[in-house]
Amino acid sequence: VGRGDLDPSSIVRLEEDAVVLLDQRRLPDDEVELRCGSAAEVADAIRTLAVRGAVAIGIAAAYGYALAAARGDDVEAAYAALAGARPTAVNLRWALEQVRDASDPAAAARALHCAEVACCERMARHAAALFPSSCTVLTHCNAGALAMGGYGSALGAVRAGWERGVVARALVAETRPLLQGARLTAWELERLGIPHSVIIDSAAASLMAAGEIDCVVVGADRIAANGDVANKIGTYGLAVLARHHELPLYVVAPSSTVDPRTPTGEAIPIEERDPAEVSRRFPARNPAFDVTPVHLVTAIVTEHGARAPAEAVA
Amino acid sequence: VGRGDLDPSSIVRLEEDAVVLLDQRRLPDDEVELRCGSAAEVADAIRTLAVRGAVAIGIAAAYGYALAAARGDDVEAAYAALAGARPTAVNLRWALEQVRDASDPAAAARALHCAEVACCERMARHAAALFPSSCTVLTHCNAGALAMGGYGSALGAVRAGWERGVVARALVAETRPLLQGARLTAWELERLGIPHSVIIDSAAASLMAAGEIDCVVVGADRIAANGDVANKIGTYGLAVLARHHELPLYVVAPSSTVDPRTPTGEAIPIEERDPAEVSRRFPARNPAFDVTPVHLVTAIVTEHGARAPAEAVA
Repeated sequence: VGRGDLDPSSIVRLEEDAVVLLDQRRLPDDEVELRCGSAAEVADAIRTLAVRGAVAIGIAAAYGYALAAARGDDVEAAYAALAGARPTAVNLRWALEQVRDASDPAAAARALHCAEVACCERMARHAAALFPSSCTVLTHCNAGALAMGGYGSALGAVRAGWERGVVARALVAETRPLLQGARLTAWELERLGIPHSVIIDSAAASLMAAGEIDCVVVGADRIAANGDVANKIGTYGLAVLARHHELPLYVVAPSSTVDPRTPTGEAIPIEERDPAEVSRRFPARNPAFDVTPVHLVTAIVTEHGARAPAEAVA
Repeated sequence: VGRGDLDPSSIVRLEEDAVVLLDQRRLPDDEVELRCGSAAEVADAIRTLAVRGAVAIGIAAAYGYALAAARGDDVEAAYAALAGARPTAVNLRWALEQVRDASDPAAAARALHCAEVACCERMARHAAALFPSSCTVLTHCNAGALAMGGYGSALGAVRAGWERGVVARALVAETRPLLQGARLTAWELERLGIPHSVIIDSAAASLMAAGEIDCVVVGADRIAANGDVANKIGTYGLAVLARHHELPLYVVAPSSTVDPRTPTGEAIPIEERDPAEVSRRFPARNPAFDVTPVHLVTAIVTEHGARAPAEAVA
């Protein structure tokens, strides 16, 4: 790993005897690979956030399943362990379903990975066309190459907008408690040479009021059939603030994130993580995601284009 | 220092040769006192947040001025150093003006400290009368005994409401970047035996949407003549969110926080602190305060009572 574009295979890949991941817990200080020798180890890597991001965990799980199949392990146990590693993102289960029925799971997983990155590039192109000129874009969490197995969704849009000359700079919400914005998104922007500043999550409101933010761009972990969007905790607050300040909120996510089996946001399970991630000293709550109702979303951008939310899920 | 009520003299006091502070940077892990042997050392303690909170820094500055007078130091230089230590809170300058013209600055500073704590108890009584029964109160930053030199303003209201049996529990926004909520407010609530949970700042929105928050109570660093409120960064966002969810936002602060010389929030200087407080690795912005416009404030509670904002400043 060096400066510039992140090679998809440097983020996650299948080798003969392991799924190899760039350990995202160690970034930005250390660029270290983690070798997972079994599906159970991949599930652990997903649960402990060595790999995170809706699409990247789907790809890692698909590789984990393929690894189990190649080793002759119990693939049904592998499937269950991987599908249960995290509850909110729908792509995890979707990706596993893609490889489970394939005659060659390893080839299917690699094709899936390749297709997801291509999908990001299409989404990003569609999303970049929405940005006004010279704009400052606020993004939350990490919806970059790290989250998607390559290129990125919301951060891919920022990159495409920067390359077109319409995005002037990015503001990065640090994204407590695990600082995916301050650690991962800022690291990706630095590599890409895109001007950026990290802000605390709660500074977004006053920067909006001061006219320093032109639009908000986020990814999604699951989109319900009515267009409600589950994403990293804090997204919903940004959506309310964007509406209050009459700024657009764009959700950039592959169509595989839309779950027709989830009618509305109320049906999306919200993972509650260990309170110690928030405070080791005092009682704490730690919901990892929130739900933004469809009426606060300006557009959902998938590989098929930018649409009003009701049309994007239709 | 132990469990229970925080004695005002344990937070800040004047001794013969020093101003002695509970070092708030070290809490909650260590309860350590810091001895400041000169006004310049008190100014340093204010600037580096060993003592913080609008009223507490005013009291510390008043003691610092009295110390300079007792030592026969240049009191005008002491005044300038103390008044310039932080720009946003108006109480700092106000407190210094109270002691500067006194014949006995030490006695005047001690009287000021005593009056501020009594003022908190009156504010808290007025504010507690506003709470609905069995309510969950969200507070931001630390407007407790530590911030006020004793008892607390917004957190004093929570305490008075708990003692009356109307407040069931407190939610504590951790308050990035320096975690005054997670470190100081939670520590005070633990000492007082009031049930509480720390949340990340950006979890407030979804907890409001879920009906888990009944009202928001904050302090203030300066209130403009029109009722606009400067307070810790993040307050304005909570105000927008509270309005969106039809929840009341109460500002609890002594009348000395109202600055008739500041016409509106636009005239309040917002301190930009070292970006390294936000990120040591990437570029960052670090405004320490924001301004909540008067129309988002349900009531301002001073020692004179709870009033609609326009009346509170009249």
